[in-house]
Amino acid sequence: MISSDILERRERQFGPNAPLFYDRPLHMVRGSECWMWDADGNRYLDCYNNVPHVGHCHPHVVDALCKQASTLNIHTRYLNEVVLQYAERLTGLLPSPQLDRAMFVCTGTEANELALRIARHASGNRGVLVSDFSYHGNSSGFAELTTGLPHPEPMADFVRSLKIPDPYRWEGSEDEMVAHHLALVDDAIESLTEAGFGVATVIFDTIFSTEGLLDVPPAYVQGVAQRVRDAGGLFIADEVQPGFGRMGDAMWGFESTGVTPDLVTMGKPMGNGHPVGAVVTSSALADAFTGDALYFNTFGGNPVSAAAGNAVLDVIEREDLVHHSATVGQYLQERLKDVASKFNCAGDVRGRGLFAAVELVGDGKQPEARLAKAVINEMRNRQILISKIGPADNVLKIRPPLCLGTEEVDLLADALSSTIGTLAQ
Amino acid sequence: MISSDILERRERQFGPNAPLFYDRPLHMVRGSECWMWDADGNRYLDCYNNVPHVGHCHPHVVDALCKQASTLNIHTRYLNEVVLQYAERLTGLLPSPQLDRAMFVCTGTEANELALRIARHASGNRGVLVSDFSYHGNSSGFAELTTGLPHPEPMADFVRSLKIPDPYRWEGSEDEMVAHHLALVDDAIESLTEAGFGVATVIFDTIFSTEGLLDVPPAYVQGVAQRVRDAGGLFIADEVQPGFGRMGDAMWGFESTGVTPDLVTMGKPMGNGHPVGAVVTSSALADAFTGDALYFNTFGGNPVSAAAGNAVLDVIEREDLVHHSATVGQYLQERLKDVASKFNCAGDVRGRGLFAAVELVGDGKQPEARLAKAVINEMRNRQILISKIGPADNVLKIRPPLCLGTEEVDLLADALSSTIGTLAQ
Repeated sequence: MISSDILERRERQFGPNAPLFYDRPLHMVRGSECWMWDADGNRYLDCYNNVPHVGHCHPHVVDALCKQASTLNIHTRYLNEVVLQYAERLTGLLPSPQLDRAMFVCTGTEANELALRIARHASGNRGVLVSDFSYHGNSSGFAELTTGLPHPEPMADFVRSLKIPDPYRWEGSEDEMVAHHLALVDDAIESLTEAGFGVATVIFDTIFSTEGLLDVPPAYVQGVAQRVRDAGGLFIADEVQPGFGRMGDAMWGFESTGVTPDLVTMGKPMGNGHPVGAVVTSSALADAFTGDALYFNTFGGNPVSAAAGNAVLDVIEREDLVHHSATVGQYLQERLKDVASKFNCAGDVRGRGLFAAVELVGDGKQPEARLAKAVINEMRNRQILISKIGPADNVLKIRPPLCLGTEEVDLLADALSSTIGTLAQ
Repeated sequence: MISSDILERRERQFGPNAPLFYDRPLHMVRGSECWMWDADGNRYLDCYNNVPHVGHCHPHVVDALCKQASTLNIHTRYLNEVVLQYAERLTGLLPSPQLDRAMFVCTGTEANELALRIARHASGNRGVLVSDFSYHGNSSGFAELTTGLPHPEPMADFVRSLKIPDPYRWEGSEDEMVAHHLALVDDAIESLTEAGFGVATVIFDTIFSTEGLLDVPPAYVQGVAQRVRDAGGLFIADEVQPGFGRMGDAMWGFESTGVTPDLVTMGKPMGNGHPVGAVVTSSALADAFTGDALYFNTFGGNPVSAAAGNAVLDVIEREDLVHHSATVGQYLQERLKDVASKFNCAGDVRGRGLFAAVELVGDGKQPEARLAKAVINEMRNRQILISKIGPADNVLKIRPPLCLGTEEVDLLADALSSTIGTLAQ
């Protein structure tokens, strides 16, 4: 039971439009591993949150945070060992020796803002390509290039949005699908060039999460990168959702595309809840930019944030979470496919590692947004937390902390089977 | 002694352009109250940093942070008591009942970005007025309206920069000075209107810190606010530097201007080092904006950030830091004026509460940037940390944690007197 008092206080403080999950909102008071508890002591299995990447309140991360917060918390205009260690470890996790420079910020939005500044500086161009249902930040500038959320700002004149290939809905061959969508990229680049903006960058979440976790062929991403680079632009991989081992097969989402980005942006999972973000790029790009711009980020790279970031990397290593994500993720896919095989409305199961999507549809693959909403609310009533994504809001989104185990996958899959069985009569 | 190893590692990780304080950089390892220690155990009096607002590693803030980090760290789409309490307390500290709504973000940049979005939405205009030596954020959008730092981006076409009155250099009466500078505001508004942008907002740090902590008459700020509002725009007060009691006479810098802002932005001091920012505005403005924009900030308002923010407010209250800032600040002004009276080069002493500036000049008030640089480096050698500001880089900036006491003011003033005496031969 949520007291009406807390709902009223929330509305008074945050207004009627502040987003809140589920028809019956949750009042949370405690978290541990992949579990959260509400004010009445009910326990919920968290299959949604990627911020508590290595598990809610992981003691190793909390200890590192507390130890550093009680020792020193200051900015990077003094020398400090902790942030150096973190930068060295983080750049060491990138698969290319050219991605050798970390620039620390506080959020994914700040990371994408900085990456955009660097891309524009390097290219001398202003134009930006984004996917046609994407979100990379909540700033004024990024609102004007957001295609996946409502915002009052008109789209910026220097933006072109790209239709992303959706293999589930494409009727022809993969080659035809890729060629068709790359022709749209050519059009967009031509349009930016004709308008005098040129191409500064394309920015992709390389697993296309907001778009519905689409299973996009690597050849498409490679073709986009090639075309953007031919036009003088750079490739930004937004790793806020796929990064830090979630994909199981690799540390970064872009690694399965065959494209090495010019700029990699990071956020949510980095500090297990502590606000940490980063841009990783080459020394050449970073130094050229900082030679002309005095870039400074007050909280970026402070030793407490760096200690939290280091501790997250420790846990990923010690608990072998990338491999864990692969094996448990494999089981998750199997169980979800098994559930989907029983219901026509579960049209497609997608994903890799510990990020899965189930697309709910009617006849002729008609998106079933209402069913998706009912499912996540009924799952919440069964104390299992998931959400939904995609342009038609009909794709179940399963993106748990990486410590999720196979027993929890069973709880999730059994509840989902029973929920869909009840609702999809 | 800084080991060359750490400098080399820093250059490898952050490049040759990453800003670093002082000719002989400092390698910091520990902080407490208004003191920091370097790797060799030397103790430094911190008269520069406003992020550790209530003192480095204040145990009450660290305890609150650790307690909450080990309990729950999640976003605001679940109900949570801690962030509600913080919002209630924070809005209670604003002097107008209309400033009743807090929107949480992670940094001052994010706060200004959000305030700009709200101002544009409310006004329907795009134009922005800024002072001609100001800095409000490091994002792509704010780079294009930064006048106080080098950046490669051209100024945005929708920005006009305003010359701010400088009483120290103005030769006529205060009335004439205000009238002259307000006429420039009229010109800027006319120019924005003619260009079709209209006026969305003026954004001011109301104590004009970056500008050199100018002693701007309230009548000027009131005149700007009036003109901007007449043109349909809003007034944003950037409280990142003056806010949270630093001015001694009030909680917020804008309170001495006689203007109640439409939007108040907050950052650095809020979490004593933890990345916390906020926009405080009216329900009317906030609800109109969030009715059209789905604004969500992942880390903004998380319970750990809110716990840190609450703890900072506790300490300000318990240690009576606003009053402390007034009395110690008064003593600081007296001691600095006493020092300045001995040296012609110390042309002006300005400031309020625990924010002070000493302008260094030659004949005819010629700015002495080289002397300012020498002074802060020599002060660093004497283990007292200050910095410099202003368009000519010749104004000493003294902005310590609020726990600074009169004994530390004596250390600072004596060292400054001796340093200027040595250098200004």
